[in-house]
Amino acid sequence: MPVLVMKFGGTSVATLDRIKRAAKRVALEVAKGYDVIVIVSAMSGKTNELVGWVNETSPLYDAREYDAVVSSGENVTAGLMALTLQEMDIPARSWQGWQVPLITSSAHAAARIEDIPNDNINAKFAEGMRVAVVAGFQGISKEGRITTLGRGGSDTTAVAFAAAFDAERCDIYTDVDGVYTTDPRITDKARKLDKISFEEMLELASLGAKVLQTRSVELAMRYHVKLRVLSSFEEPSDNAGTLVCDEEEIMESNVVSGIAYSRDEAKMTLVSVEDRPGIAAAIFAPLSEAGVNVDMIIQNIGEDGLTDMTFSCPTDQVLRAQKALDAAKDSGALVFQELIADTNVAKVSAVGIGMRSQSGVAAKMFQTLSDEGINIKVIATSEIKISVLIDRKYMELAVQALHDAFELEKAS
Amino acid sequence: MPVLVMKFGGTSVATLDRIKRAAKRVALEVAKGYDVIVIVSAMSGKTNELVGWVNETSPLYDAREYDAVVSSGENVTAGLMALTLQEMDIPARSWQGWQVPLITSSAHAAARIEDIPNDNINAKFAEGMRVAVVAGFQGISKEGRITTLGRGGSDTTAVAFAAAFDAERCDIYTDVDGVYTTDPRITDKARKLDKISFEEMLELASLGAKVLQTRSVELAMRYHVKLRVLSSFEEPSDNAGTLVCDEEEIMESNVVSGIAYSRDEAKMTLVSVEDRPGIAAAIFAPLSEAGVNVDMIIQNIGEDGLTDMTFSCPTDQVLRAQKALDAAKDSGALVFQELIADTNVAKVSAVGIGMRSQSGVAAKMFQTLSDEGINIKVIATSEIKISVLIDRKYMELAVQALHDAFELEKAS
Repeated sequence: MPVLVMKFGGTSVATLDRIKRAAKRVALEVAKGYDVIVIVSAMSGKTNELVGWVNETSPLYDAREYDAVVSSGENVTAGLMALTLQEMDIPARSWQGWQVPLITSSAHAAARIEDIPNDNINAKFAEGMRVAVVAGFQGISKEGRITTLGRGGSDTTAVAFAAAFDAERCDIYTDVDGVYTTDPRITDKARKLDKISFEEMLELASLGAKVLQTRSVELAMRYHVKLRVLSSFEEPSDNAGTLVCDEEEIMESNVVSGIAYSRDEAKMTLVSVEDRPGIAAAIFAPLSEAGVNVDMIIQNIGEDGLTDMTFSCPTDQVLRAQKALDAAKDSGALVFQELIADTNVAKVSAVGIGMRSQSGVAAKMFQTLSDEGINIKVIATSEIKISVLIDRKYMELAVQALHDAFELEKAS
Repeated sequence: MPVLVMKFGGTSVATLDRIKRAAKRVALEVAKGYDVIVIVSAMSGKTNELVGWVNETSPLYDAREYDAVVSSGENVTAGLMALTLQEMDIPARSWQGWQVPLITSSAHAAARIEDIPNDNINAKFAEGMRVAVVAGFQGISKEGRITTLGRGGSDTTAVAFAAAFDAERCDIYTDVDGVYTTDPRITDKARKLDKISFEEMLELASLGAKVLQTRSVELAMRYHVKLRVLSSFEEPSDNAGTLVCDEEEIMESNVVSGIAYSRDEAKMTLVSVEDRPGIAAAIFAPLSEAGVNVDMIIQNIGEDGLTDMTFSCPTDQVLRAQKALDAAKDSGALVFQELIADTNVAKVSAVGIGMRSQSGVAAKMFQTLSDEGINIKVIATSEIKISVLIDRKYMELAVQALHDAFELEKAS
């Protein structure tokens, strides 16, 4: 029988009633003839509670024990979901990560999936089991210790199972009904997309549209797993949600598919660094070693052998970046006058695969912001994305204006 | 190094502060030179919450899923305890049941321990680990499914580890400071016992004095594991608590050691069953198959080839007993007029190894109850115990009167 993977996030399994609601959706797919693999998150709030306990017990915790503790939330939901399905007369059982086994690297709290042998579960499907409920987010290392995949890892679990079982589709049930042209809380003109390409979804996910974990989209793209994002709070329908798929499957689309934003970006400026070959490496090597995720980089035109270098990084990494650069300065590896951190900025991005073939998108974006009197601090572009850093107070205005300018309220 | 097993119950690990307090006790024993195996329960309330969810989801649940869900509470505590010990610079790690592995039968929700290979943990002790924190109450079946040992199973886990690792002693930390002549909440004359024999403890445990799980005492008796029950809320001392040990180690004791009671017993009466050979088997075989724990049994004197059969069972098994007997009736294997369940009863028992050599204990017990105007509904006796079923409303009165009559407030 064809296999379908269905993943239910924390809010979709937050109570016994919601688990029942989710189980009814599973039942619909079983009735259509699918063998279903259900991936569940912990009931919402549970993982945060467990992480809080670990942090309070041991601020610099042993990640192996962290994993042993925080993985327990998913085990509870998996068992309850299996029981709920059994009550509906659907043959089901739960699987914990180590039972599958979902084999991962030993990078505790941020493990990578290495293998998902499908023989155990397939043997049960062959015996008549119709639903395998798998605890998301967790696996087992070669040392036999429990691992977790990092926050949001259940999305990645779901996609990995879809790939391992050659599933027809991977449905991600969450508390939003799909991927929007932008955040509907910022403009009510935001429109749900029926389809979006993996590439666009990746940009949107990494730019702060937190519908799917970035790794899950990467994995889906690599294994050509059709991914559908949909709400577990809406009536079931075949056209619900947004399908994330290969570009080729999308016939037509707007030049710009969506406007993303992020408040968690800080602008860092190194004033008066030497303008010499190798200076970029001298700056960014220590940042990389310190684990700072540098996003945008611009170098000003130099004068008198000196220049300013600006980059952006997540706000919660500002202290780490300052420490790393000060250390480089103290060691003599880097000379600069001062480091200015501006955390009062926001990043706004236009994303769309149509940009590849259409010129003038950047010009239109800059003109729109200029018409609103919004000053651009930093610009970065890729093949399918243009990002700008602006004052945070203009963020909502910028999103609304760009959404209008690219006419995203209209389907192509 | 000598091994000590320390078990901490739910109230002893109910909060992060209490886990820290328990860890300090572990540290004291490590400092004395012990390698310690710590068995932990779930934080108090957690298991009840999980059991509640399972019951609400599926009243006649698949016990394999029940086990997968309810075992998660202990995993959390084990990880947190290991982290707490690590913070105190004590080399420690957590083990879930399947990691040890603690191998059990496949009788889910009531599994029997079959084997505890000690090589994994001993290898870690040899490498310098000083404390193995083991999640209590759980194991793994030969089919690779998680099992649990039944409520209070962490005591049994502790004793089994003490036997498997040839431990010097097994200390059970709980919220009471030892075994009392009766429940101190019922009479303030209740007195703590310094020592009690395995046999007496067995009767007290099985009769509802819920200090230790019955099976843990059976196991301790079989393997001569010295068991100490003590409070984790009192100052550490070498003479704390009650030592449960072989009869030979107890020099003197009262005829009656304690008065136990249980509110969780129901009286079931089968009215007008055939009075013929094989009728007891026809009644109790289906009950046994349905997993009903029948305790007391009495058969009335028959008339006209019919008789009434009365038995007691835990109140939460009444529905199951009714179903099993109705099914036997429907199949024609058993004929009876009606089944009356009386859940408004309580069991009160006098227990003491002294009864073996002393007569008149039963007479004194019945006279005492009669003097208080308490009617006895069912009587059952063993070598070291006399139990009666009475109206629940008289339970406290009965316990107080018997405690006085046998002068249990005085040490022998």
